[in-house]
Amino acid sequence: MALGTIALDTIKTPSGKRTDILGGSACHFALAARHFIKVSLVSVVGQDFPKAYRDFLKKKGFDLHSVTVLRGHTFIWKGEYKKDFNVAITRRTELGVLPGFKPRLSAHQKNIKTVFLANLDPDIQACLLGQMHNPRLVALDSMNYWITHKPKALKRLMKKVDIYFCNDAEAKSLTKEHNLFKAAEALRKFGPRIVIIKKGEHGVLLSCDNAKMILPAYPVKKLVDPTGAGDSFAGGFLGYLAKRKKISLDNLKKALVYGTVIASFNVEKFGTERTVRLNTKEINQRVSEFKRIIPI
Amino acid sequence: MALGTIALDTIKTPSGKRTDILGGSACHFALAARHFIKVSLVSVVGQDFPKAYRDFLKKKGFDLHSVTVLRGHTFIWKGEYKKDFNVAITRRTELGVLPGFKPRLSAHQKNIKTVFLANLDPDIQACLLGQMHNPRLVALDSMNYWITHKPKALKRLMKKVDIYFCNDAEAKSLTKEHNLFKAAEALRKFGPRIVIIKKGEHGVLLSCDNAKMILPAYPVKKLVDPTGAGDSFAGGFLGYLAKRKKISLDNLKKALVYGTVIASFNVEKFGTERTVRLNTKEINQRVSEFKRIIPI
Repeated sequence: MALGTIALDTIKTPSGKRTDILGGSACHFALAARHFIKVSLVSVVGQDFPKAYRDFLKKKGFDLHSVTVLRGHTFIWKGEYKKDFNVAITRRTELGVLPGFKPRLSAHQKNIKTVFLANLDPDIQACLLGQMHNPRLVALDSMNYWITHKPKALKRLMKKVDIYFCNDAEAKSLTKEHNLFKAAEALRKFGPRIVIIKKGEHGVLLSCDNAKMILPAYPVKKLVDPTGAGDSFAGGFLGYLAKRKKISLDNLKKALVYGTVIASFNVEKFGTERTVRLNTKEINQRVSEFKRIIPI
Repeated sequence: MALGTIALDTIKTPSGKRTDILGGSACHFALAARHFIKVSLVSVVGQDFPKAYRDFLKKKGFDLHSVTVLRGHTFIWKGEYKKDFNVAITRRTELGVLPGFKPRLSAHQKNIKTVFLANLDPDIQACLLGQMHNPRLVALDSMNYWITHKPKALKRLMKKVDIYFCNDAEAKSLTKEHNLFKAAEALRKFGPRIVIIKKGEHGVLLSCDNAKMILPAYPVKKLVDPTGAGDSFAGGFLGYLAKRKKISLDNLKKALVYGTVIASFNVEKFGTERTVRLNTKEINQRVSEFKRIIPI
């Protein structure tokens, strides 16, 4: 299950521009996780949300029962990337129906075992988590904005999750620690037993009780649009784990590889253009190729 | 063989300060490569160069026949690293005897098979290379300064070497290409059949005819001083290859791992403080540990 945004994105990068394309953390996550599991989206859209996009999400097999439609407009993000793709320049954010959103799950959804709380107000994330019956694996993503504006709610929530995802800047800012593995260890003291720090084009690291792991990003031929790469990574990572009996070190390793590989497809086209037509064969081919280029 | 500087470094980092410690590209390279081969240093020092340092280099087993002593003072570098260790802030450079230096090799040295041309004036690098009889493997390192000030001499030299080392900023600046693997491919068109781009704390990538490779840096517990990490990496990398019969893909892979691991020790203390007392057992232990934390 993914709690997150469904958005209309307008994105400009050195490769071109797209207007009002389907985006948002829940979509990017689900399009990656679908290769392993059926995904329930928990989100909100406005009355303006295009029927074609809703039909498309349904056709992809996502459970849209908890995608609420509210009076008002869908969340809009307008952003730009210059040559340094690591920094998204937000040109405009229109929250639309987002602030009025309270997730409400169906009886079936409350029993889902794997939960991704994408970056949102920690109170909304907590509201969803409070409805779950005994989930097996809960992962949380957050952002600088909430670290600054709702640090208490965020830290309260961190006590209740298994996995915390963040990027390198957020890890440093939350812990005042420059060494990323030390930052990850400090973050684990807030609650989550697994911390994953995303470093964009420089890859990802994981810290848990008995191990640390580090993996570079897959080197794509052309980086077109990094929007959604983090959620795509989370989707591949959690999707892979959701299908495993045990959250063993070996499965965490494989999950990192699948998350990384699926995210690498995501950034090769705008928005979801690449991940909507991604298939298992392509993923497995790239996993093999990835293993070949890492000299270990 | 290493052509490069022997320097007196004064270094300030968030961990402390050291004054007039032994440094320079030739020293950092040699202290890494010594774990595999006997290293001849080709360099110059002033009359002020401390006898204790010279004795120390001799005791480490380096061939100092071509370390010239000239009237004047030894090359001095004074630098500082702030929290962002990726950027060295040069406070002062005093070239001293360096500009008058012309490398002159002994008959024995002219037959050495593995040659490292550390960052120096490309004319000096070419002067050394011109004296060599049929070397098997020649590697070149350079810097933005020479890319800007002697681009023709540098490009002439690149045609004659097997391996070109540079950092990510230099690769981008030389090729006007942002994608690092594309930059590496463009650099190979200048001559070297193997290009290695160093990304500091983000690791290293290699491009050659039939393969590409990417490896993260070993995550050190505490980064104290990155001075010399690149030359230390080159020393581990080339030292490993010098001992192999073939420059196969498999040996290139292993060389990347040894270079990375030895460089990781280098940055844990100031200057050469850690590498002078590094032993093979420690290197092999960290190679194993490194393999464990990369989930491939």
